[in-house]
Amino acid sequence: MSFSKASNYIDSNTASAVELLSRLVQQASTQGNEQGVQAVVIEKLKSLGLEVDVWDPEYSVLATSLYFVPSRNNFGGSPNVVGVLKGTGGGKSIILNGHIDVVPEGDRTKWTHDPFSGKVVDGRVYGRGTTDMKGGNVSMLLAIESLIRSGIRLKGDVIFESVIEEESGGAGTLAATLRGYKADAAIIPEPTNMKLFIKQQGSMWFRVTVEGRSAHGGTRYEGVSAIEKAVLVHQAILQLEARRNARITDPLYKNIPIPVPINMGKIQGGSWPSSVADLVTIEGRIGVAPSEEMEEVRKELRACVQDISNQDPWLKDHPAKVEFFGAQWVPNALEETHPFVGVMKKSFEAVYQKPVRIEASPWGTDGGLLGKVGGIPTLIIGPGETRMAHYPDEYIEVKEMIGAAKVFSRLLIEWCGTNP
Amino acid sequence: MSFSKASNYIDSNTASAVELLSRLVQQASTQGNEQGVQAVVIEKLKSLGLEVDVWDPEYSVLATSLYFVPSRNNFGGSPNVVGVLKGTGGGKSIILNGHIDVVPEGDRTKWTHDPFSGKVVDGRVYGRGTTDMKGGNVSMLLAIESLIRSGIRLKGDVIFESVIEEESGGAGTLAATLRGYKADAAIIPEPTNMKLFIKQQGSMWFRVTVEGRSAHGGTRYEGVSAIEKAVLVHQAILQLEARRNARITDPLYKNIPIPVPINMGKIQGGSWPSSVADLVTIEGRIGVAPSEEMEEVRKELRACVQDISNQDPWLKDHPAKVEFFGAQWVPNALEETHPFVGVMKKSFEAVYQKPVRIEASPWGTDGGLLGKVGGIPTLIIGPGETRMAHYPDEYIEVKEMIGAAKVFSRLLIEWCGTNP
Repeated sequence: MSFSKASNYIDSNTASAVELLSRLVQQASTQGNEQGVQAVVIEKLKSLGLEVDVWDPEYSVLATSLYFVPSRNNFGGSPNVVGVLKGTGGGKSIILNGHIDVVPEGDRTKWTHDPFSGKVVDGRVYGRGTTDMKGGNVSMLLAIESLIRSGIRLKGDVIFESVIEEESGGAGTLAATLRGYKADAAIIPEPTNMKLFIKQQGSMWFRVTVEGRSAHGGTRYEGVSAIEKAVLVHQAILQLEARRNARITDPLYKNIPIPVPINMGKIQGGSWPSSVADLVTIEGRIGVAPSEEMEEVRKELRACVQDISNQDPWLKDHPAKVEFFGAQWVPNALEETHPFVGVMKKSFEAVYQKPVRIEASPWGTDGGLLGKVGGIPTLIIGPGETRMAHYPDEYIEVKEMIGAAKVFSRLLIEWCGTNP
Repeated sequence: MSFSKASNYIDSNTASAVELLSRLVQQASTQGNEQGVQAVVIEKLKSLGLEVDVWDPEYSVLATSLYFVPSRNNFGGSPNVVGVLKGTGGGKSIILNGHIDVVPEGDRTKWTHDPFSGKVVDGRVYGRGTTDMKGGNVSMLLAIESLIRSGIRLKGDVIFESVIEEESGGAGTLAATLRGYKADAAIIPEPTNMKLFIKQQGSMWFRVTVEGRSAHGGTRYEGVSAIEKAVLVHQAILQLEARRNARITDPLYKNIPIPVPINMGKIQGGSWPSSVADLVTIEGRIGVAPSEEMEEVRKELRACVQDISNQDPWLKDHPAKVEFFGAQWVPNALEETHPFVGVMKKSFEAVYQKPVRIEASPWGTDGGLLGKVGGIPTLIIGPGETRMAHYPDEYIEVKEMIGAAKVFSRLLIEWCGTNP
């Protein structure tokens, strides 16, 4: 059978895949510095004979979308790269999407190896981006390569997307989708430890501003403590979190204590111990359920804060204000009954000889944009240690990356169809 | 009668008193910059023929006192000045204490006149320190001068203290007291609008630190929110405030909504909207009742925070911590039945033809140090707009300063006794 040939190819080309990953990691592709790494990707795509499309996302195009998070004013010098393997026709197409940007390395003293060394030790590749998610990208490239080099001709198109800006809200994937790249399905190999996330939680950042009235601490009854009022708002938001989560009946979430948390992560207010605080801000992240629209969640949080304001004599006249700022991730969902899920399950089992574990992710990916903007059924499954993402000594197991490559190779055969 | 002569002297020497105040204001005596203003005070005391003592408070001496707030490491170049008018003997002595330091002028654009001009407009002297409290100091000096120039010889000693560092916790008054300056009574003409504060609230600054455990906001149930735990501590401290105030039965406080407030003025915690906050600090000011000891109040706040920590499963193992930091003001009290209060009431009535209004102040003064360290019965009464202290366009009414001088002149006659 053709897949065994591809699988063997993958096994015998592990070393060059590891080398490619090291080269990708050595290009420190933090926000604004993606050109070097994309040059490596382009070289690889060209060597495979794919049609390559390289462009800097345009702000004016992105700005036409409601889903655009303006993480910067200008994307010049930060190219997206797409490589297309044209099928022979008559098959289903697929997008293989992976982001190439990485978060900064943080405190270098916490790293055992240089964060941009791509060093290989005991079957692991170390460095920023190994697990999140250059390792997954290499799995996809190796899958494509295994088919080409094994002489397997797919019917459907394979669109490989190496996108920027996932870590800052998804402008890269949004740009690729607005440029017209669509397919019958998509996968994003974010590090899930090869669990299959058929649903992903979205999220938004918010800021609540609570006003008080200053006074000297010795006569604090002449003022109004913004801290006391912020406590009211804080408690009301916790109650909203409880109500929102009580509504969730999806069995996928049955073991999750709080499926869509509202995290109030930062509080700041007052300027002097002996003055009454006249302003407090709370900043947080509100989770968006896979079935929800971003806008309805915004409305619900605003209504909650307005409600508690109406119940307090001071806040009634000085209502707490809600803004949404910073990054956002759009949720995504695919029902387990969707054919693409079936093909993915089958492909996983063929390689791992056990059923894939299906979950909903507690964080967002670019899958929300592929789903909502592109209308593309999208799944998240990839190699790598979820818990190492964004941490010092980030690494990926070579064995996992190779396993994933085989699953993707099999998936392409099953989904796109092959010619004899 | 002798007082009418002194009173007439005060009236006819208003202009020179105003000139003296302007000169004092023109010496911007913020912390560390007191030498210039003290030179003017020394010149004045010498012109009146008083014995003058000038010294820089010594840290090592101050450090022997439990009441020392180490506002700086070194008081070199920041002299205290004391002038003594020896009595003829057989009378009661008095300390006239006034601080010569001022708080910074703040944003100069908010001032109509230069904050250090000492400009006189429509019967008011403008500038930083006019009301808090160089105006009161001039009232005292004018009172002494009126007696000397009217040939009135007192039996008891008059000790005039021009002290530094009141705005930062009282090292000047503490140094004068430790140097041995004691008397049978003391007044401090802080700006009370000539109300008589027989009791003064003390205060301390505190910081509560509440620990949590960080986690990603999407799985916030894996962490512990320091903000949620800080809310528990905040509510417990509000309950402590209620209990502390319920104990206060002094009729002087019957119209004060919260006689000894606990003001939580500043809150700060967490570093990222989508992370669980792992540390929150609350900074505040706890009022100390006139009848209380500083240490018992410290203990009570510590016990309250320990109590609430014991009641929470997380805080039990990670108890919230209390520290006391920054400035403190020791409370003070004199019963209305004390003879000095009687003499003060009489002196006020003689000048103003109406009873003096008796209150407890919501803030501390150096009176606590005179009372607790020196064992000196101390009253607070002085000219000036309380609400203008520390504000832009600070001013004092010349009329009030002159009225106060007459009250003090009369008080010295009544308290110290006179020779025929």
